[in-house]
Amino acid sequence: MNDKPSVIRETDEDARILARDLMHKAAHAALAVIDPETGFPSVSRVLIADDVDGAPLILVSGLSAHTKALMKDPRASMLFGEPGKGDPLAHPRLTVRCSAQRLDRQGDTHERIRMRFLDRHPKSKLYIDFPDFCFFRLIPLDASLNGGFGRAYILSAEDLMTL
Amino acid sequence: MNDKPSVIRETDEDARILARDLMHKAAHAALAVIDPETGFPSVSRVLIADDVDGAPLILVSGLSAHTKALMKDPRASMLFGEPGKGDPLAHPRLTVRCSAQRLDRQGDTHERIRMRFLDRHPKSKLYIDFPDFCFFRLIPLDASLNGGFGRAYILSAEDLMTL
Repeated sequence: MNDKPSVIRETDEDARILARDLMHKAAHAALAVIDPETGFPSVSRVLIADDVDGAPLILVSGLSAHTKALMKDPRASMLFGEPGKGDPLAHPRLTVRCSAQRLDRQGDTHERIRMRFLDRHPKSKLYIDFPDFCFFRLIPLDASLNGGFGRAYILSAEDLMTL
Repeated sequence: MNDKPSVIRETDEDARILARDLMHKAAHAALAVIDPETGFPSVSRVLIADDVDGAPLILVSGLSAHTKALMKDPRASMLFGEPGKGDPLAHPRLTVRCSAQRLDRQGDTHERIRMRFLDRHPKSKLYIDFPDFCFFRLIPLDASLNGGFGRAYILSAEDLMTL
C-alpha cells in the first residue's frame, strides 16, 4: 500500500469549489475530538455556521463531552456533506482536519460570529447567550474530499478558505 | 461543571430500544479514528451493516485512511442517526465508543458477515471480494444517546447489544 494511493486526483478549481460549497452550505456536521479521559476518538453532531474566511463555527455547551475534550486538546476533525437518496457513498463528502480555537465573549470577533451563527440558526437565540455556552472557530489545516467513487482529492487550508 | 451533568437521564427500556434502532436501521455512519501519523481524530463516512448481536460491521478498502488507522489503533467512535427536516439537534443520534476487530477472510464468521453486508448493500457485490477490502467488527464499549433536547442517556455495551 502506498501512503498516497494513485486514486488521489490532482486538485483543480472544481474540487476547491465543491469543498468550499460543502462547508458553506452545511447547517450541521459530525465533529470528532479526542476524549481526554480515554484517548478514544469521539464523534458527535454539531450545528455549524461559517466565518467570513470560511472557517467553521460551532456553538457548544460547557456541559457537553466535546466541549470538555476541545478545552484539553484542540485537535479535531469535521465531516461535511449529507448523503441524499441512493448509495450514501455516491454523494460528495469532506473530512477537514482542524485546530479548535475557543473564542472570548468580549470583542468584535465574538459579535461578528454571534451574528453569523444567529443568521444561520435563528432558534439558537434561545440559548446563544447562556453563560455555559461558547463558540469555537475550527481552523482548517487540510482536508480530504471524496466527490463520489474514484474522485478523491487532498486539499490544503488555502484550497478551503475564502479569504 | 460536573463530570456527569444532571441532564443525563436514567437509562430505561425506551432509551435502549431507541439506541438499538438507530444502530440497526442505519445504512451508513460517521466513523472516527485516530490518524497514526498526526494523532488527530479523523472522521469519515462508512457503509454499515449489523452483526447478529447488533455490533456494527464495516467493509473498507486497505487504501483508505480509516483502514490504515484502525490497523494501528483499534480505538474508534461511530455516530448513528440522520437528521430529518427542521432543527438537526431535535433528531435522535447515538455516539458509540468501539474497539475495532479486523476479520480474517476465512471461516464461518467471515461468510456470515459477508452475507449480512450483501443483504444490506447489494451493490457492494461489485467490490466485496476485492483482495484489498476487508471487514471490521466494531465492538461497542459504551454509548451516549441524545434523544433530542434534554433527553441524554449513557448506555452500556449490554444496553446496545441484542445477544
